Amino acid sequence: MSKTVKKTHLLLFATGNIHKIKEVQHFLRDYPIEIKGVALKGKEIQGETVEEIAEFSVLQASKKIGKPIFTEDTGLFIKLLGGFPGPFSSYVYKTIGITGVLKLLESVKDRSAEFRSAIAFCAPDIDTVCFLGTSSGKILIKEQGIHGFGFDPIFEPDDGKNKTFAEMEIEEKNRISHRTRSMRKFVTWYLKHYN
Amino acid sequence: MSKTVKKTHLLLFATGNIHKIKEVQHFLRDYPIEIKGVALKGKEIQGETVEEIAEFSVLQASKKIGKPIFTEDTGLFIKLLGGFPGPFSSYVYKTIGITGVLKLLESVKDRSAEFRSAIAFCAPDIDTVCFLGTSSGKILIKEQGIHGFGFDPIFEPDDGKNKTFAEMEIEEKNRISHRTRSMRKFVTWYLKHYN
Repeated sequence: MSKTVKKTHLLLFATGNIHKIKEVQHFLRDYPIEIKGVALKGKEIQGETVEEIAEFSVLQASKKIGKPIFTEDTGLFIKLLGGFPGPFSSYVYKTIGITGVLKLLESVKDRSAEFRSAIAFCAPDIDTVCFLGTSSGKILIKEQGIHGFGFDPIFEPDDGKNKTFAEMEIEEKNRISHRTRSMRKFVTWYLKHYN
Repeated sequence: MSKTVKKTHLLLFATGNIHKIKEVQHFLRDYPIEIKGVALKGKEIQGETVEEIAEFSVLQASKKIGKPIFTEDTGLFIKLLGGFPGPFSSYVYKTIGITGVLKLLESVKDRSAEFRSAIAFCAPDIDTVCFLGTSSGKILIKEQGIHGFGFDPIFEPDDGKNKTFAEMEIEEKNRISHRTRSMRKFVTWYLKHYN
């Protein structure tokens, strides 16, 4: 059950992704932090890692806004596809989609994959910091579930009791997700640093 | 047959791709321009278009080098895959590769595709300029040929006499390629502007 926690910190979250905002807001129920989403038209770099992309994005956002701000970048890394779609997951989702990814894995036995979430935070008084959260699992052979977003319907986390992220309500996904893990590290650091 | 042209201009080409350097050098045989490749460790952005990526890269390169410099970005846009792999062609090539792209197109009838090459040039005295060259064609069902690079072995240009780019020597590819077309526009502009 959730306690009612007084919000004493306001943090800007540079994202236009409403799903991410909802998950992060839900995660923060037990923390004295509230967030405000800021959709900035920044450039994302083509990085090899989500950390690199998040750090670049938050620096741009920070320059534009001039206030403490964080951002998040997520990628789904499929082992047998050399990490594809990785840092380009949202582009791949928009083009070949879930169907394309399932096609690429047809008759593939090792379907191991990992979601990686990087949170980068920047403020005028400190260097950029970055926190990584991961979730290991496998890609199913078909979509299951209606919740979440992106590749959630085909990703079954190892600790998810044979359910995909899309078969979980936000509360359940938030107990084990990559994003929760990166957020937990970030928030722990943040409250230590700013309290 | 190629005339011998005296080289009166030296241009920096921001790229680490030896294949691109060779093609551009070959193209410039008939022009008074010679190039020097400069491999810079810049960031590429995640853009929707090759133009956007080339312009961003050349600005970064120009800031670093402080001299007139150009760069080139190429993408293969497959119609029925929503333009995939598009601006992310080199990442897709490195991960799922040609095999992956062929897999995505299994039993697909409309195999139309387009190579797009954007050349962006920047100098201290002018705003960035960008030139686009395209080559329409189709994706074959298997690899053919050993020349060229990247997705050349599966791309048959419409005006290529039923050969893939990889079945052509550099001279033949350079007569009709997207890169030749962007280079031709760029060089025409450049010689008018700087002569």
